[in-house]
Formats: sequence, structure tokens, C-alpha cells
Amino acid sequence: MMNADEDRVWKAIPPCCLKAMGPCPDEATRHDTVVSGWFSEVPFILFLCITVADKSFYHNPMWPGEAHSLKVEKILYHGRSDYQEILVFESYGYGKVLALDGIVQLTEKDECAYQEMITHLPLCSIPSPKNVLVIGGGDGGVLREISRHLSVEVIDICEIDQLVIDVCNDFFPNLSVGFKDPRVRLHVGDAVDFMRKSPPNNYDAIIIDSSDPIGPAQELVEKPFFETVAKALRPGGVLCNQAESMWLHTHLIQDMLSTCRVIFKGSVHFAWTSVPTYPSGTIGFLLCSTEGPPVNFLDPVNPIETQGVNKFRRELRFYNSEIHRAAFALPSFLKKELRTTSYNS
Amino acid sequence: MMNADEDRVWKAIPPCCLKAMGPCPDEATRHDTVVSGWFSEVPFILFLCITVADKSFYHNPMWPGEAHSLKVEKILYHGRSDYQEILVFESYGYGKVLALDGIVQLTEKDECAYQEMITHLPLCSIPSPKNVLVIGGGDGGVLREISRHLSVEVIDICEIDQLVIDVCNDFFPNLSVGFKDPRVRLHVGDAVDFMRKSPPNNYDAIIIDSSDPIGPAQELVEKPFFETVAKALRPGGVLCNQAESMWLHTHLIQDMLSTCRVIFKGSVHFAWTSVPTYPSGTIGFLLCSTEGPPVNFLDPVNPIETQGVNKFRRELRFYNSEIHRAAFALPSFLKKELRTTSYNS
Repeated sequence: MMNADEDRVWKAIPPCCLKAMGPCPDEATRHDTVVSGWFSEVPFILFLCITVADKSFYHNPMWPGEAHSLKVEKILYHGRSDYQEILVFESYGYGKVLALDGIVQLTEKDECAYQEMITHLPLCSIPSPKNVLVIGGGDGGVLREISRHLSVEVIDICEIDQLVIDVCNDFFPNLSVGFKDPRVRLHVGDAVDFMRKSPPNNYDAIIIDSSDPIGPAQELVEKPFFETVAKALRPGGVLCNQAESMWLHTHLIQDMLSTCRVIFKGSVHFAWTSVPTYPSGTIGFLLCSTEGPPVNFLDPVNPIETQGVNKFRRELRFYNSEIHRAAFALPSFLKKELRTTSYNS
Repeated sequence: MMNADEDRVWKAIPPCCLKAMGPCPDEATRHDTVVSGWFSEVPFILFLCITVADKSFYHNPMWPGEAHSLKVEKILYHGRSDYQEILVFESYGYGKVLALDGIVQLTEKDECAYQEMITHLPLCSIPSPKNVLVIGGGDGGVLREISRHLSVEVIDICEIDQLVIDVCNDFFPNLSVGFKDPRVRLHVGDAVDFMRKSPPNNYDAIIIDSSDPIGPAQELVEKPFFETVAKALRPGGVLCNQAESMWLHTHLIQDMLSTCRVIFKGSVHFAWTSVPTYPSGTIGFLLCSTEGPPVNFLDPVNPIETQGVNKFRRELRFYNSEIHRAAFALPSFLKKELRTTSYNS
């Protein structure tokens, strides 16, 4: 049972935060009003108003003890699909923001860094990619970036949540424009099923643009899934997977690298870049190639700059060949923890 | 006049936040209790409890509309010097934290990135640095890093605030250990005065480890100060200056680059790295050299790795030669905004 003060505070918490927090002491006290002013990935406000028995209760398991807050100018959309809670708001300094289950997925200001890097790190590392698969990525940003590559003939995308696609179509036209490329074939469904049915040796590149590996995306960082990915790639084909923060999730990165070194017989690398609105301000990428023509991720053979702007007439905002090479330079602490002499050099 | 609710909220705001916020409606309502639970660089809590007439009132002018919060385990020190408010606390995930005027200066977890980069970017770019000057840097971290360089004979440091030195000596022994190097000569005083009296052609390298250019550090990013710095450097000597966030402060970076291109006749470059607890998760560095033997910042001639661990037996945690080179790779948006073809290539 909660007292009146606790009840009042619970009612003031945005539901998108509640979901990220874990179990709620009283489901009935959840309330749909998003508190005016600030959006935060961790509902720190509780600590300011009430003392609760177990503070760890409110930690996001992916980044305990810290929170990044954005000032909310206006809530634009708020709804729940079969898979997750979807929130779109206009922020003070980062443009429109998409949050899923209370976690920032993208902001208009810094999405360029993530979308361009996760796409061009793999696609610029192989000559003339033709068949590309995107897993997740329902916002369309990765599709928009793939569309710059003139050699590409087919862009399959497997996204589980139609509502994410629809909401992004309404609020993020600069990302969802990616779906307008006639080479795109949309498959709405579960990626694990999709990969199981995928023909072997089919793709030149697979990009996994998933949410964090807690909840529905958990299977996407496990060995059986990576095995289906490796099978679906042609010899010398490449995978690029979102790989969390080098400052916060070293063990997770270590696990992913270990798993992938067993499965991918070509090369396996970790790269990183700056995305201010992701935890710790960085995001990592796992880059793997299958056995076959060797792939040197560290030196792009297929520079995108020479292909000019894409059909959507948007210039590259973040990626270039120097940033590509620089992304593989790892801090000494990470090299040591990952023993990356065998990975990145 | 404030109502009772507003008054209650004001009383709950840590004074370190109040200072960063700007004018206070009622000086008398300030209260010394640091709110238990979370430290934040922007006092977002106000938005959750009361509506105020002018929300912009609460913005930190350096990064409006966002806040990074760290869970406070224990307040270790809280005091005010003649220059600033000093707060030390144990955080949940980042070790001990030093905040000046409510702004995080360093955390034990990520200080390695800032201290190592601001020191070794300049010192590894010139052969055998002998005389080095640090401006600011009272925590001792930059001194600790300089001490790795065996060629160095004199390390002058000009820090305005003795209390910062003393507090760091008590709470951050892994940084203040830098003061124990016998080559260090401490000058407590104003850097503008110190530079005015400094003999010409004296230093191989000057490192400006200042707080943000609002308040006491403002003069340190202005032309007259840079002119005294350039004069104090030998021909082909180098400056490294903290240069804010490429995501948030492009105009400030542009101004600094323009000013320095006029004053430093050698080369002028911008570099950046990842520091999770700084706004946007990145920090920039301005690297300049005076006319004389040419300096190629992009390719370190004086690698520190070969000099082994320093006398304090602490391994490099972040810096290495690849990270050095990578730091000069700029995102396309920044290249465009800075028109850096003339700076970084």
C-alpha cells in the first residue's frame, strides 16, 4: 500500500518511464498524463519527492545510476502497440524525439550519426553491395541511407512493429522517406522467424538496427540468431549490429564479440561513434564478415562520398571516409578489456 | 513574491545548481541541503512540481534544454571558495565526482579520456617537450599525464583556486598525485596576469584546462589572452585548449578557430573525443602551433606508449596513437560548419 504522497508521485510519472522502470507497486496508479517539462530515461523525480524502500527498483538495467533528460516542448504522439509503448515529442534542443518503452531511439538533431554510421560502415566496406537486409529500423532512417548506394538492387526490411512505421511516417518524414525507395520490400514480422526462413547465401549485407537487448530484442544478440544471419549472408558478406556503449556495456560487447568470432569466419570488429542522446553519448557497432573474399572494414573500398547525394537530395551529415576509419580506433581500456589485438588490429 | 509551493521547491534545490541557473527570484530561499538521490547539471525538478512564469530562467546557457543526472550515493564535500562552489560526491556508477558551480568537471570513471587527450594530443605532437605550462587543472590530472613524458624538465601550473587543489588532494588522490612530481612549480593566481608577466619563447607546450567560458574563465577564450599564450610559446610550440562540444557549441568553436588562425601562424586544428559525463558526451580540443618548425598534429612524432608507465605506475587508460589520429576525423556537418578544409586537411 502506498501513502497519498507516493500515490501522487506515481500518477505524475509518464507511462513510458514506468515501463522502463520494471515492476510497479500498484498497476492501478499508472496515469496517462505525461508530466509537462522534461522527458527522462530514468524517472529520477521519484527520488526528489518520496523515499522508497528499494531504490534499485527504478534503475534502468541498461544504465543504472544515470539519466539524460530532454526538455519537452510538446507531446506529439503517445500510444501503445502490441510490442511497446511509443512516444513522440518535440524537444527544446534536439528537434522531434522518438522513444520506445521510455528509451530514446532517435532525435532529429543527432540521428544522422547513428543512421549513417550503421549503414555505411558495412556498405562502404564491400564493393558493389546488391542485396541488403535491415532488421528493425522501422523509422526508415537506415533505408534512407542504403538508398544512397546505387549498386543496391533489393532492400529487404523486417520490422516487427507496424505502428512504429506508421508513427514515423506521420512525424519523421525525413527518416520514413527511406520507405519510398522502390527497391524496398517491407516484411512486417518477427526477425527470428524471418531469418529462419531466409534462403542461404542471399545477402551482401545485413544491418541489425534493433532496440536494446532487453525484452523483445533479446533474441537478436544470441548465438542461434547470429547463426541464421551468417547463413543468410553470401561468402564475404557483412553484418553490422548495434553494439551498445563501450563505457557502460563492456561485458555485453565482449559476449557479442566472442559469440561472433565463433560464427563469422572472416573478420570481427568493434567500432564506435558519438550520439549525444544515447547513454554515455556513444554507440558501438559490431562488424563481421563471413568466410570468403576478405573484408577490410578499416579501409572502406566503396566510398559513398563519390556517389553524391541520394535521390532524396539529403547530403551526408556525419559519415565520411575519415570518420569511418576513425571509428575503429579504440580507447586503451577497451582494447585491454576486449583483448582486441585479435579483433581490431 | 513566491507562493508556498514555489518556496518549498526552491528550498530543495542544491546551491550548486542554483548558481548555474542564473538569477534567483528570492535569494533568501536558497538552502544548503543537497537533495538526496540525484545530482543534475540542470534543476529540472522545478518543472515537475511547479509552473513558473519564465522557464528559460532555469536553463544553463551552455546547454539549454537538456540535463545529465548522476545518482548520488554520498556527498563527500561541499564548500565555496572566493571563485566558485565546490562539490564532491560519490556517484552510483561513475565513482567520485567533482562539480564546480554545479557543472561536472570530472568523474573517476571517465576522467582518463579528458586528462590523457588534452595532455598527449599536444605533447606527442612535438619531439622532446621540455618546458610545459598548464593553465587551470587544479585537480592535478593533467600534471599526472605530463609526468609520463621523460623529456619534460619543468611543469609550471597556474591555477586560480587553491581550494580546488586542496579538495582534490583530499578526495582525488589519483589525480592530485600529479602535484607530487618534483618538476611541478605551482603558481596560485590569475592566468591572465601570469601570462602577461611570462617571458617570451619560454614554453614548448601550453595546456589550457579551464572550466566553461562563462564567468571567471571567459577571458581565457578571448584574443588578448591567446596573444599572450602565443608569445610565451617558442617557435613551433603548441597550445591545446579545451574547446567545448561539437554538437552544441559550433559557433563558439568557430570563433575560437577564427581567433587562433589569426594569432597562431603554424597550424590550427580541432579534435574531439568521448567523455560521457560532459554535455553531449563529447569534448573538443583546439590545437595550435606557432610559426617555426612545422607541427603535424595529425601524426604524433613522440608516441607516449613507448615511454612505458609514468612514475605513478598508472597505465594509459584511454590515449594511444590510433585514438590520437582518430580524434581529428570530423563529422561532415562539422567540417561544413567550420569550413575545415583549411583547418583539418
